This record gives sequence, C-alpha cells and structure tokens, in this order.
Amino acid sequence: MDNPIAEELAKNQKSISVAEFFEKNRQILGFDSAPRSLITTVKEAVDNSLDACEESEILPDIFLQISRSGRDNVVIIVEDNGPGIVKEQIPKVFAKLLYGSRFHALKQSRGQQGIGISASVLYSQLTSGHHTKITSKIGHGKPAHYYELMINTSTNDPEILRDDVVEWDRPHGTRIEMEMEASYVKGRRQSIYEYLKATAIVNPHARITLVEPDGNEFIFERATDKLPVPAKEIMPHPHGIELGTLMKMLRYTQRQKLYPFLRYSFSKIGHLAAEEICKSAGLDPDTGPHEMTRDQSRKLLDAFSKVKIMAPPTDCLSPIGEELIYKGLEKEFSVDFIATATRSPSVFSGNPFIVEVGIAYGGQLQKDDRVDIMRFANRVPLLYQQGGCVVTHAIEAIKWKQYGLNQPGGGLPTGPVVILVHVASTNVPFTSESKDAVADIPEIQAEIELALKEVSRKLNRYLNKRDHLKKRREKEVIITKVLPKMAVKLAQTLDREVPDINPVVAKIMGNLLVSRVAVSDGNGGINISISIKNFSSKRHDMKLHEMISFQIHDASPQPKVISMGNDYDYIWDLSVSPGSSKVVRYSVENMSDKDLAGLAELIVEGLDEELVTGAKAIRG
Amino acid sequence: MDNPIAEELAKNQKSISVAEFFEKNRQILGFDSAPRSLITTVKEAVDNSLDACEESEILPDIFLQISRSGRDNVVIIVEDNGPGIVKEQIPKVFAKLLYGSRFHALKQSRGQQGIGISASVLYSQLTSGHHTKITSKIGHGKPAHYYELMINTSTNDPEILRDDVVEWDRPHGTRIEMEMEASYVKGRRQSIYEYLKATAIVNPHARITLVEPDGNEFIFERATDKLPVPAKEIMPHPHGIELGTLMKMLRYTQRQKLYPFLRYSFSKIGHLAAEEICKSAGLDPDTGPHEMTRDQSRKLLDAFSKVKIMAPPTDCLSPIGEELIYKGLEKEFSVDFIATATRSPSVFSGNPFIVEVGIAYGGQLQKDDRVDIMRFANRVPLLYQQGGCVVTHAIEAIKWKQYGLNQPGGGLPTGPVVILVHVASTNVPFTSESKDAVADIPEIQAEIELALKEVSRKLNRYLNKRDHLKKRREKEVIITKVLPKMAVKLAQTLDREVPDINPVVAKIMGNLLVSRVAVSDGNGGINISISIKNFSSKRHDMKLHEMISFQIHDASPQPKVISMGNDYDYIWDLSVSPGSSKVVRYSVENMSDKDLAGLAELIVEGLDEELVTGAKAIRG
Repeated sequence: MDNPIAEELAKNQKSISVAEFFEKNRQILGFDSAPRSLITTVKEAVDNSLDACEESEILPDIFLQISRSGRDNVVIIVEDNGPGIVKEQIPKVFAKLLYGSRFHALKQSRGQQGIGISASVLYSQLTSGHHTKITSKIGHGKPAHYYELMINTSTNDPEILRDDVVEWDRPHGTRIEMEMEASYVKGRRQSIYEYLKATAIVNPHARITLVEPDGNEFIFERATDKLPVPAKEIMPHPHGIELGTLMKMLRYTQRQKLYPFLRYSFSKIGHLAAEEICKSAGLDPDTGPHEMTRDQSRKLLDAFSKVKIMAPPTDCLSPIGEELIYKGLEKEFSVDFIATATRSPSVFSGNPFIVEVGIAYGGQLQKDDRVDIMRFANRVPLLYQQGGCVVTHAIEAIKWKQYGLNQPGGGLPTGPVVILVHVASTNVPFTSESKDAVADIPEIQAEIELALKEVSRKLNRYLNKRDHLKKRREKEVIITKVLPKMAVKLAQTLDREVPDINPVVAKIMGNLLVSRVAVSDGNGGINISISIKNFSSKRHDMKLHEMISFQIHDASPQPKVISMGNDYDYIWDLSVSPGSSKVVRYSVENMSDKDLAGLAELIVEGLDEELVTGAKAIRG
Repeated sequence: MDNPIAEELAKNQKSISVAEFFEKNRQILGFDSAPRSLITTVKEAVDNSLDACEESEILPDIFLQISRSGRDNVVIIVEDNGPGIVKEQIPKVFAKLLYGSRFHALKQSRGQQGIGISASVLYSQLTSGHHTKITSKIGHGKPAHYYELMINTSTNDPEILRDDVVEWDRPHGTRIEMEMEASYVKGRRQSIYEYLKATAIVNPHARITLVEPDGNEFIFERATDKLPVPAKEIMPHPHGIELGTLMKMLRYTQRQKLYPFLRYSFSKIGHLAAEEICKSAGLDPDTGPHEMTRDQSRKLLDAFSKVKIMAPPTDCLSPIGEELIYKGLEKEFSVDFIATATRSPSVFSGNPFIVEVGIAYGGQLQKDDRVDIMRFANRVPLLYQQGGCVVTHAIEAIKWKQYGLNQPGGGLPTGPVVILVHVASTNVPFTSESKDAVADIPEIQAEIELALKEVSRKLNRYLNKRDHLKKRREKEVIITKVLPKMAVKLAQTLDREVPDINPVVAKIMGNLLVSRVAVSDGNGGINISISIKNFSSKRHDMKLHEMISFQIHDASPQPKVISMGNDYDYIWDLSVSPGSSKVVRYSVENMSDKDLAGLAELIVEGLDEELVTGAKAIRG
C-alpha cells in the first residue's frame, strides 16, 4: 500500500456550514411538504411574536396574511405589536441559523433553539429565490428599519440586500414578508387555521388575525386582558445534571472557591446544602473549581444525589392550567365528560418540567375512531410527527381496557375521546429542529403516563356509572311503562282509585322515594310532611329543596332558607341510610287547595335522576 | 418608550455553536435514553466502517466490544480493517460536528451528515468526562497514530489531549474507544444484537464480531466474499431541483456560458437536451450563468420540466436486491409465504431514490399482533421512531382489508406479517440527525405505497388460494374417508373386486385425474398409456414426469428426456382443457411384472397437490 486510499479519501473531507446542512436536510426543520412548509413558517413567526410580547409584557396583537403568488408559491406576511428588534440585530436574527436570545436562558419559552425563523428565510430563498423583507421599530419616535435579507449558506452569515429607514405607523413591532413554495390547506387538523385556533385556546391573552388567500378574515379575539405570569429565568438545578456539564461549569466559573460556586451557580443550594455537599464529596469548600480533576467532579456529582436538595423552582415554567384546559376542551368539542390533571414539577437532565393533561369523552366524538390527541409543548400546539412523540408513546403504553376503552392491536385506544397533553419545560427535548414531537425521555414519559392514569381513573368511574345508570334506566323504562297500565287495569276491574305506583317503582329500582303529604289542620292552615325512603343499598346524602311562595313555620328539622324574589327556597341537609326513611315536616297558614295543587315538584340535589322517584333530581 | 425593551432584549442575543446546540439537544442526535445512546454510538461507528471499507473495496471485518464501567457507564471499542484516516484529519473527523467527506457527494452512503461519530464523542465527554481514544493506520509500514480527543463545545473545534505514534499490528484500520453513560440491553428489537443481525442480513459481505459485557462473543460471519457494486457519485438531476439551488449553481459555476453549464453540471443533459432547454427557456446558449437574473433562472427551471430528460442514473444507488430481501426474511422468520418488489428509481428534490419491499406471512408469526415492520435506509436498519417514519405512514395509508388483513382502528394492520422496506437514496431525508425515521416526503410515500400494493396483491392471491385450498382439502378429506369404506362394503356385498375410487374422487373434487394403464404386447414388451382427465373448470398447463430406469420407444407425443444416473426422466409438456383428456403412450421392452409394480408414482409439475388425484403434484 504505497499510495494509501486514506489519502484519496482525505481530499473530500471538509467542514459543512450549518446553513448548508439544513439546506440539504430541510425536512429536519419541518419543510418536507408544501402545506407543512407554510405551517412551519407561520408557527415560527407567531412563536417569536408571542415570546417577545410576553417578555415585554405587551398584550400580543398579531396580523397574519397569506396570499398566492404564481402557481406554487405563497407570500406570507406576519406583523406584530411586539417590542421590535434593534437595528444591529435584525440581520442576524433573521438570516443566521443558530443565533438567538433564548437558547442559553433556563426558562420556559416557545423559541429555544435559535433556528426557527431563519430556517424559513433559508427555505424561502431556496424555493422562491426571493429575499425576505423585514421592517422593525422599537418605540414611538424611533425610526422603522427596513431590510431585505438572504442567508449566505456557505458561511451561514446574513447577506444584506437593502437597509433603509421607512415610515411605519405602528408605535413598535416587527413585520416579516417572505415568499416560498408552499400551499395553504383548509379543513384538516394540520392547517394554519387549526394551528391558530389551538394557539388561541392556550394563549387567551393574544389577539390573532388571519387573512386567508381568498380574502376571508378570521379574528381569534383575546378572551382575557391578563398576561400570563411571565416565566422567570433560573439557574440549573443540581439533580440530573451531567458530569460533562458540571466539569464545564467548574472550568468556566468566575468563583474562586467551591463553596460559593455551589451556592451561586445552582438553584436550591443554600448554605447548609453547600456545606453538606462538600462534606459528602470529601472536598474542601475552599477548593478552587478550576483545579478540580475529573474524579473530584465525579464525587461532587455523586454528592448532589446524596444530599437532600429541594425540588427545582417552578416559576421558570408557565403551565396552561387545568381551568384553561377544561374550558378549551369544553369549547372545542361538545362532550359528556371532561377530567384534567396537573403533575407536580419534575426534572430530566437538570431541566424542570411539568405535565398537564385533559381527557374528554362522548358527545359528538366518533365512537370507532382512534382517540384524538392534542399535543402542546410550552403552549405551542404540535401538529406533525404524532407517531414519533413521547405523548403518543405514553398513551400507547397504557392498558386502556382497564379504563373502559378499546385498544385493538395494542396501539392507540379507540373511542369517542380527546386526550390533551401539555409538556412545559425550560428545555423541551424535541426529536428534531422542527419541534413537532417530544423525544422519548423516560422521566417525561413516566409523568405523562401518571397524569393520564389519573384522568383515566376518573373517566373509568364515569363510564362505569354511566353503564350502570343506563341499565337502571332501561329497567325503569320497562317498569314505568308496564306498571301504570297494570295499575289502571286493576283499578278499573276492582272499581277502585288508580293507586300511586311510585313506591313500587322505587322499591323495584332500589331508588329513593320522595313523597309529600298535605293535611289540613282544621284552622285554614296545612301541615305538610315530606318523606324520603331509601330503597337502595347505599347511604345517600342530599339537599332537599322546597321552593314555595309561602313562609313556613314549625319546621322540623329547621331548614336553611334563601329568599328568591317572590319565592323562598327552603333547604334541608339530609342523609338517609339504606332501608330507612327521613321525614321533614312544616306548616303553612292560609294555603288554598289550589295553592297546594300548584306546588312545584320537590328537588333533591346531589343525586342522579335515575336514583330518585317522586322528585326532580339535580347533580348540584 | 424612552428606553425601549428591545435594547434590553438585544443584550441576550448571541451566536450558538453547533456543538453547544447539540449538547443541549442531544436527544435530536439519538441520545435520549441509556440503551438508545449505546445503539446510536455503535450504529455511527459501524456505519463509518462499512462506508469506508466499501469506498476502498475492502471486505469489512469489524470488531465490537462493550464492557461495563462503574454503575452507569459502558466502554465501547470499535475496531475495523478499513483504509484508516490520515493523521491531520483524525481530530476533525472525530471531534468536530458538521465535518465529513460524504455530505457534498451525490451518491448513496450510510453517513451523509458529517455529524454521526462526533456526536458520540460529544455525548461521551458530557456524561463520562472522559476523552475519546482513537488509533488509526493507513497502510503497511505507515505509523499508527493515537489521539485522545474532546470537543470544545463553545467553538465546535477539536481539543487534542494526546497525540502519539504507537505500535499496532493491523496493516490498516481504525480503532475507537469511548466511555459514556449508557446501558446494554438484550432480547428486544431495539438492541445492539438485533441491530447487528439486521445489518448483517443486508450487508452479507461484512464480518462483524460482538463481545458483550458478560464476555459472550457473537460472530456474524460473512455470507459472501463479493463486495456490493460500489455506488458512483453523480451530478444533480434537473428534475425536482429547487430554484434557489439552481441560482446557487449558476452563481458559483466555473463555466462561462449556459450551454456548457447545462451539459456538464447535471446528470442526463446531453447535447440535444441542453439545446432544447435553452430554446424552451428563451435563453441564448451563450448567456453567462453568473449574470442570470432570478426571472431567467425561473425560466430555465421551468424548461427542465418541459423538455424530455432521461430518468436519473441509478449507479449512484446500491439497493439490497430482491434476492437478499427474500433470503433475509426466509432466514429470519419461518413463514409460509414471501413476496418482494423493487420500484423503478424516482426523484425527490433532485435526489434519486429507490424503494424495495418484502412481505412475509404466516408460519410462527403472531396472529393477533400488529404487523412487524423492518425499516432500512441506505442498508442501515432503523430501530427507533417507527411511529414518525414515512414507512409506517405509508403502511397505515393502505386499506389492508382489501388485501386480506385486519386493520382495527385504521392504523397498522394486524396479522402474522412482517413488512420490510428499504429506502435507498443519494440523500435520505431523515426527520432528524439521529437518522431513525424517514420524513414524510410525498414522492417517497407514494413509491412505498405502490411497492406495498404490489406485494400485497400477491399476498392476497396467496391468502385467497390458501382459503380455497383449505376448503377443498376439508372436502377431500371427508370424501376420501367415506368413499373407500363404501367401496369396500359394496364390493364385499356384491362379492366383487374393490373398485378404484380415484375417478370418483377426482370427479367430485373437480380435480385432474391421472392414471397409468399397462398392457402386455405379447412379445415381452409392455404398452403403457397415461391419461390425464381434467374435471376442473379451468384449463391447466403442466409437465408430466415419468421417471423409470428403462428406455422407452414409440412415445406419442415425443417427450424430452433427461438422463439421471440409472434413471431417465421423461417429460411431456401438456395442456388439458376443462372436461377433456390427454393421453400419452409409450412402449418398453423386457419389462417384468415386478418392474411394472415397482414403477414410481407419476409426477405432475406445475399444479397444487390438492388439484391432482392419482399422481404426485409439485409446484415446480
């Protein structure tokens, strides 16, 4: 081997610019089809606007216009009322990959990679050959700067093709205009409209206006003027941190001694914890961090897991909240049942994260389809790569038959169900730069499964009860159809009055039988007694409501009373054991027979209607 | 707004090194769990070895050893007999992300991103704090270089911690040793062992030795000494190329005129095509490429799709081949049926690609599970992210009920089925740098679906026939059990000889009835006639074999004859219409009765045994 092949091969070895890399692998950034390319671009632009507004405590007002250009291209305009971008930063923010402000910050934000919008600029120039046009203004009285930009892909640096000052009537904000090969689709989950709708649900403080290519305008109006509590930047938490990261922190810290390094470089290491860590690691608190060997660093790392350290702070996170999840599901789908759950914060590789879930059942959802999954990460809806996402894998890992859902073939369950999962973290571990799916991090999967099991147990209880009640209802329908006819027939035959069949129905059904009896006291007054007999096998607690327009007296037991215009609502708290009865008595003066006949139906609060005979039941 | 927020925000804006980016987002590179981190590393190292050996036309011999180190770490050693790496390149190849030889080349290779092994080095230093140790030698008599390396993550440059010349007994090759937080798992699809097994199936020219942490050694021996035909580097094909790419090519070409630019910068543009393209675009062939405007480039691009250009060359691709796919499935699973298909090459965004599939059914595969999917890209098995892969999405998009498989809930079909899909391309569009899933490129999905439909039609025919034959067999079992008993009974009653029931069975079953009758010619010779009567409703073609140790004469029609040692195989090509018969006659001299009784059973080739009565049937 005189002329080794290795030398031939070496000639082809060279550096690859990150822009070249993504130019060739644009599918990694979410540009693999015409519809998706547009959604990716809109998502990146809207994410940036929402992040910038939140950081600046501005209520976001985002205008988005999509129009067709030629056969295969669209022009996208996104305009916001955000803080604007200072002149010097504009070229790099838009025309340099891996450049940004949120990458190094440990707090929840939508953008975290420094790739997003510049990827769209790259794709735009690649497919349309056009420059991207940026206008930005940072405040009233300041100039608005207009740039036309491209990315030099061999160096990953901005190429500035125009740099002007222009008139712009907004006090502050940023406007992006770009053209690209893409297509606008409607009527499916993976669409701009659906993305914006989902975004609006979890960002109710934002107003978003969409103008579609055909001129249709949609306004997603803000539902609240309250900004979400802004996420705070934190220091890394010692749990789950990696040896290499720790060694790098030790090497580059400005602290000269181990003790202050520990206290002031981490979350939740106080005076005592810092001392204990040094002790447990067998290290002098005065050790210089820069001189520490790999083995010493290892001991320090081991000490982190031995010493008790408080859980990471959660003010770096900004969850959606169970209320908003509930409302979102309720508004979006008309369903019979909703349950939500929020897990306590947890940590993976030193990054705090929190999982929230919601489950909705029934209503108009399709019975035989696979369950519908809504995924969110840091308040951003995820539309693609569902099959590659830890959320889906967590759902597939649950034995849904235990919770009353079918799971044919062992994959996703089927049924009229929507599952919503939100993962919020200082660093959401996406499977790729397109940020469409969360990676299979064991800690995250475990938390999602636990949250899902929590809501699924509630769903299961609901389903069991519903089945039970359904069977009761079927039984009752039969009984209440047959018995009255028999009663009438019998009464005719025997020439007697038709008897009240309610007691019989209640007895057969195992219900609570409520009945009211009125007896004249001979002095123009009426004594009323209400009895509740429990034919079921369980003790039941309830509130009995008697709503009448008379004042009552001599009541036993004494009810609470709420005055409601001309009526009074008398309320008794009652508890009836199986097989026994409770009786409530009261008297009314000056009540005519007509008044008596016009008395409203009694109301029992706290019981399902299937369980009550002789009164109206409300769940309360 | 005197002190705009934008100025505050600008302070945090900064560049992110690609190494920092992946240090924070290592899950993108395939390092999201302890078992996967190890598989990713082994995969990158083995891919590199296989690529380097193929490029150098060396039969690969790869040695792989995994051992435990401490509680959570493993040490990985990978050694190959490849061409080695020249000294100057070693640090960058292993300790700089986005550096490599295969990124810019348009040909099929395993590595194509310039990220792979350096990502493992990054993960190793992050989790273990240890350097990576490299030894490489480029030829007999050349020195072996030993390096200890790390990546400086803030600059993405190699840090050289040792640089020595060492003794190494190999003539050439490369050895990698690294330690990382990882775990070795066994007994599941996502494991080193299964990855190597699948690699060996599609790379039968490689020998791979694995030493497991407990000392077990597996050798995946090579099945052939023939190297696969090496993929050739090509120029880009004009179809599907993007405007931005074309503009970049025009800008940086060394050609001074459009005509030679077209002829020598693309695949498959010959003299005529180049002229036609210029004409169709309305451009002078002497136009200087560097001066062309965006609009002119657009016209040129449009001309590419108007002028007829031959399909891209396929020697840049190295498919597995249907034979190897068939053998692989046959060896790996014991099944009843296998079908394979290869599509013609196609193009996406200017990248040629080819899809190959195989489907296996029955045998010991699980009946109720979802189908098993084996995915390959450029001869590399894909183990993770199945749910996020275009292969899975293509399978889910097919209506399997049409092909005889269940598909509950509309996702993956269920049944005793393995589906193998290989996507080979000059640029496989992976969804992320971890190269685990192919993106949803519409052109690729369409090709996979077409290939799957092709094999599924064959599967469906097999299943229909199997069902049909199963029913026939059940019927025949009954008939052949009952009829002989009836025949015997009847013969006894009537005191006659037991009749041959074959004709009756053949008639009832609609079979082909084969019968041989021998008659003495009175001169010591025997005249034999074989009749084949077709009771079925279809015409059947077959080869009738008479294997005897005698020479025959006066045969009519004339058979082919193959001499087989002491025997002759006389073969008649016959075709019998439904309801009719064919008769074959021949004579033999000097044949005793004993010879006659010892005649072998007749063989009918080309028919299922269920269709033939009175002879042995083989499918042929």
